[in-house]
Amino acid sequence: MTTKNAFYAQSGGVTAVINASACGLIETARQHGDKIGKVYAGRNGIIGALTEDLIDTSLESDEDIAALRYTPSGAFGSCRYKLKSFEENRAEYERLIAVFKAHNIGYFFYNGGGDSQDTTHKLSQLSQSLGHDLRCIGIPKTVDNDLPLTDNCPGFGSVAKYVAVSIREAGFDVASMARTSTKVFVLEVMGRHAGWIAAAGGLAAEREGESPHIILFPEITFDQEKFLAKVESTVKKHGFCCIVVSEGVRNPDGTFLAEAGTRDAFGHAQLGGVAPVVADMIKTAHGYKYHWAVADYLQRAARHIASKTDVDQAYAMGKAAVELALDGKTAVMPTIVRTSNNPYQWEIGVGELKDVANIEQMLPPHYISEDGFGITAECEEYLRPLIMGEDSPPYVNGLPQYVRLKNLPVEKILNEPFDL
Amino acid sequence: MTTKNAFYAQSGGVTAVINASACGLIETARQHGDKIGKVYAGRNGIIGALTEDLIDTSLESDEDIAALRYTPSGAFGSCRYKLKSFEENRAEYERLIAVFKAHNIGYFFYNGGGDSQDTTHKLSQLSQSLGHDLRCIGIPKTVDNDLPLTDNCPGFGSVAKYVAVSIREAGFDVASMARTSTKVFVLEVMGRHAGWIAAAGGLAAEREGESPHIILFPEITFDQEKFLAKVESTVKKHGFCCIVVSEGVRNPDGTFLAEAGTRDAFGHAQLGGVAPVVADMIKTAHGYKYHWAVADYLQRAARHIASKTDVDQAYAMGKAAVELALDGKTAVMPTIVRTSNNPYQWEIGVGELKDVANIEQMLPPHYISEDGFGITAECEEYLRPLIMGEDSPPYVNGLPQYVRLKNLPVEKILNEPFDL
Repeated sequence: MTTKNAFYAQSGGVTAVINASACGLIETARQHGDKIGKVYAGRNGIIGALTEDLIDTSLESDEDIAALRYTPSGAFGSCRYKLKSFEENRAEYERLIAVFKAHNIGYFFYNGGGDSQDTTHKLSQLSQSLGHDLRCIGIPKTVDNDLPLTDNCPGFGSVAKYVAVSIREAGFDVASMARTSTKVFVLEVMGRHAGWIAAAGGLAAEREGESPHIILFPEITFDQEKFLAKVESTVKKHGFCCIVVSEGVRNPDGTFLAEAGTRDAFGHAQLGGVAPVVADMIKTAHGYKYHWAVADYLQRAARHIASKTDVDQAYAMGKAAVELALDGKTAVMPTIVRTSNNPYQWEIGVGELKDVANIEQMLPPHYISEDGFGITAECEEYLRPLIMGEDSPPYVNGLPQYVRLKNLPVEKILNEPFDL
Repeated sequence: MTTKNAFYAQSGGVTAVINASACGLIETARQHGDKIGKVYAGRNGIIGALTEDLIDTSLESDEDIAALRYTPSGAFGSCRYKLKSFEENRAEYERLIAVFKAHNIGYFFYNGGGDSQDTTHKLSQLSQSLGHDLRCIGIPKTVDNDLPLTDNCPGFGSVAKYVAVSIREAGFDVASMARTSTKVFVLEVMGRHAGWIAAAGGLAAEREGESPHIILFPEITFDQEKFLAKVESTVKKHGFCCIVVSEGVRNPDGTFLAEAGTRDAFGHAQLGGVAPVVADMIKTAHGYKYHWAVADYLQRAARHIASKTDVDQAYAMGKAAVELALDGKTAVMPTIVRTSNNPYQWEIGVGELKDVANIEQMLPPHYISEDGFGITAECEEYLRPLIMGEDSPPYVNGLPQYVRLKNLPVEKILNEPFDL
């Protein structure tokens, strides 16, 4: 087999461990220099391929590539850019193939969520029909944990750990203050469609009465009366009430709770945030003093509190992607297969991209407690291993020392502009 | 000297390390059983003393007391309850003395901010005039770092570290996304009057162009035009802009930015949060896509990312308080005295409570950069040592394992109700 270069791109919202996948991929590719020449990364994801803006990762030291394992975010830049269908914009796909041909790229690795796997699948089909030998491998990534086929998604475990740690710590704080001050605390977390991240908050409570007392899932239609009653009974019983709310919680009419109609002085639509909406609702009904937090990007960037399981799996996905490609596979994605819960054991599987594209894996009903405000023992059994283990980054001057790569460009060959 | 019992109470907003002070105090008291009998803690702070609701800490194991060193929040409960002046409510002070006499309490330790030091001072005066021998020692605590006399306050260093870590991590995230998506990120932090916490965000940026690009301090009147121009020039130069905003930032007319007039559909005043106000302002002016986070209690409860310097100093303050009392001192507070910046060295000093009460230490002007949006090298030199060192709590099942004490009550002797 002749030596071909590889293309790697990061896609969509980044995570605390997507760079660990990049690390696994590049380190593994470097061990196979007889088959894989250079790994070119797309600057800002697939846009880098479309615009022939490639990064030569061979110019990065082994040390810096190793540091990707503990560096959050997308080291080469990511993008929110969904390729259209063949019918709508075949030119985009043809352009990708043209760039890959020009740079002798025989391996395509796309690190992202459902849309990215869909793109990878389409590209594998097109490359075959255009006669360019391109092995197309997806690498799973999403904090939302909503990809099918894989037991869990790299990126999720670390957000889950962040949320569980945060709501536990805030719970201790509020318990201290509740006698004369704050009685209610609301933490807003990500998950517009699936409640996996919110569910992870439930791992913080080990005993009856511990934080969080209530979880609001996007899978459960919000019932204001029932919710307010639960808040009141919790405060009466335990003195305080901690709530994890998913950004995606909806009213019975289908609107997001976050769109509660808040307007500024000029009548502009509200500024976002479901946490203040929920907190204010409680204040109005019961008069309890509240505090609220919106974790936003902090939760998915928090490499300092990443799950070791998550880091290991993200790295393994990058490594397995290269191995699958070298094994001649295309249109596939490495997956995580859970083989045992206790002790937790997992191995690498393979999923067909045709079965992955555009399916969202929601929190199953039996993972949500009967009253709709908590998680079941089965859910905890699923989630717990994913937050296990700590994997602290190195610290310099009191702060985590993350790497910034040189990200030097590959000289253009086509050198033709391409309109996005 | 006869054996007397000690009273210890936690006051005001809790921190990641106030329990480390409790740990230092109780462990040190236990080493002096010939002079200090039992340490009684006030359940929910000074309210526990007023209502004769005392916790017998002698019933807690050495192991559990040791665990306070790494447990955030106030283990005995805190309260927001300010004693009035002698003239307004002398009965409260007399009640405290009565409870202390009944329980043979000869040592009063009050762990809190400026108000608490004021109360401690008054109590020392009253006990003398009432002929009850009570040694009154304050123990500094506040995330706001605004107490005078001490170089810094236990509680602040850990919030500072949390904020610096968080805005660094978010900065990496936004840099990845900026090409096609989020260009502006706003993190709201605590500090209603003093900008110490916001300033700590500045430690995250090591090189030109790194996050945070802008800090908004409560000490600097908000200049919208100048701010929006700086955001625009930052995005044009670096591709993205990360902002740390203090909750206490004010408009030229003196109103808080957070009170920007946002109202819900029913005309209720806005739900709080300066971050969304700032983010929306940028969107309106420049159209940049934004994300924002409000750290709220997460920042002060985040024991998982505490500063080792802070933990050590908090412990040392508790220990020193006991030693001062045993040394016959009263109406004093142990302080942190910085003796060297590089290498950072500090020692324990002593402050007179009459000089502490009700003075707020603001960020000095020479700590803020000329344009008003950053910190100076001198500020960094002051702040850096305070976030140095990591002091990870133990982890069990993927989460920090914090202690919950038994908190068993001391039998009442007076047994008379007291109206708060």
